[in-house]
Amino acid sequence: MQPIEPAQSLMKVTTDRIRLAIIAGELPLGSKLSEQGLADVLQISRSPVREALAMLQQEGLVEVVPKVGSFVFTPDIQSALDLGDHRSILEAACLEMAIERNNKTLVAELQSGMKQMEDAVAQNDPVGYTQADMLFHNAIVTCSGNRSIKRVYPNTIGPLMALRTHLFTVMNAHLSDSMSEHAALIELCQNEDIEGAKKLIRAHVFKLIGLYQSSIDAQNAEAAKTA
Amino acid sequence: MQPIEPAQSLMKVTTDRIRLAIIAGELPLGSKLSEQGLADVLQISRSPVREALAMLQQEGLVEVVPKVGSFVFTPDIQSALDLGDHRSILEAACLEMAIERNNKTLVAELQSGMKQMEDAVAQNDPVGYTQADMLFHNAIVTCSGNRSIKRVYPNTIGPLMALRTHLFTVMNAHLSDSMSEHAALIELCQNEDIEGAKKLIRAHVFKLIGLYQSSIDAQNAEAAKTA
Repeated sequence: MQPIEPAQSLMKVTTDRIRLAIIAGELPLGSKLSEQGLADVLQISRSPVREALAMLQQEGLVEVVPKVGSFVFTPDIQSALDLGDHRSILEAACLEMAIERNNKTLVAELQSGMKQMEDAVAQNDPVGYTQADMLFHNAIVTCSGNRSIKRVYPNTIGPLMALRTHLFTVMNAHLSDSMSEHAALIELCQNEDIEGAKKLIRAHVFKLIGLYQSSIDAQNAEAAKTA
Repeated sequence: MQPIEPAQSLMKVTTDRIRLAIIAGELPLGSKLSEQGLADVLQISRSPVREALAMLQQEGLVEVVPKVGSFVFTPDIQSALDLGDHRSILEAACLEMAIERNNKTLVAELQSGMKQMEDAVAQNDPVGYTQADMLFHNAIVTCSGNRSIKRVYPNTIGPLMALRTHLFTVMNAHLSDSMSEHAALIELCQNEDIEGAKKLIRAHVFKLIGLYQSSIDAQNAEAAKTA
């Protein structure tokens, strides 16, 4: 028999639950977060909800406005650029280590993530696509073998994954681009082309930031028209 | 009048307090952490202490052994290597951004940190030296302008700073090496030599890991002798 895992901290479970709801778009960007409302939905007391919101504020997923309340973040373009730099620095470094140390497993796991993304696209399943995309990028981090980066990575990409969900309608048009980039990355890993793989991962991450910039520009143009 | 800052979450204050005690060596590597003991010293209830220990476990500073208790971490050499890679990846990337975007401020802040380290050495003040060293490396991250990396950096280098304190007796002999590396880094930044600066920061971080490896080897040799 496997030993039963000791209970996780309620604060951690609550944090993970709210983080996932933000990433999946269940709690949209900019929406107000009520401590009591979340406590009711999660059927727990307010205290772990309060601590979870403090944690998520640290991760950049929640913004607290004193005397007004807590909100899901809405990044300005500079925050999105900072997040893109941060993510591509980590993923490029992990790609290099993974190709050098663990290339066979890396290629196999990237191919498996790619297969799941293709299935999700075929079934028009956006939640499945997001999960498969996370699997693909997690494989890069896990195969690097660096446990310290693996520990912080999920808290780093949260805001970017939430942005990705937010942009899903815009991104649908770009899905085939994204899929060919994933395929090209697998080929570069197979050829152990470290510099090419690092360059591509950066371009891949910054395509999302470019889409966000376009969506902000479009909103501003719309606002200027109606002003 | 300046507005009064809203009260920080008690959990966050508690986490910061315990993290600093570990980094400063007040709570040595491997020592047992009693929830009640910490609650008594900090004059708070056990609940925020419990949540703080859960946070610090996420950061890698605390290890929880089910049914035994919580301990300050004692990294094996692989964990130390992972931490060194993680830290030098972030600092090298930040150096590049800081030199490109903000070089004058960077050089001025590095010089100011260097001055404080020299004063601490002159006064034989190890705590002051640790604080000045953190200031020096924080300047690299802050001057990069990347707010996302700035947010996670203190939680990333905690375990390495704790290692540094732990090795302080060994490191005293290496202090002049370390000081000349700091001086050389300032010169490379002044010359905007990005590749040189990135290479040196990696060597500087990995010198610490090398010292830790030597101290583990020495302990093992001692244990083999007495066995």
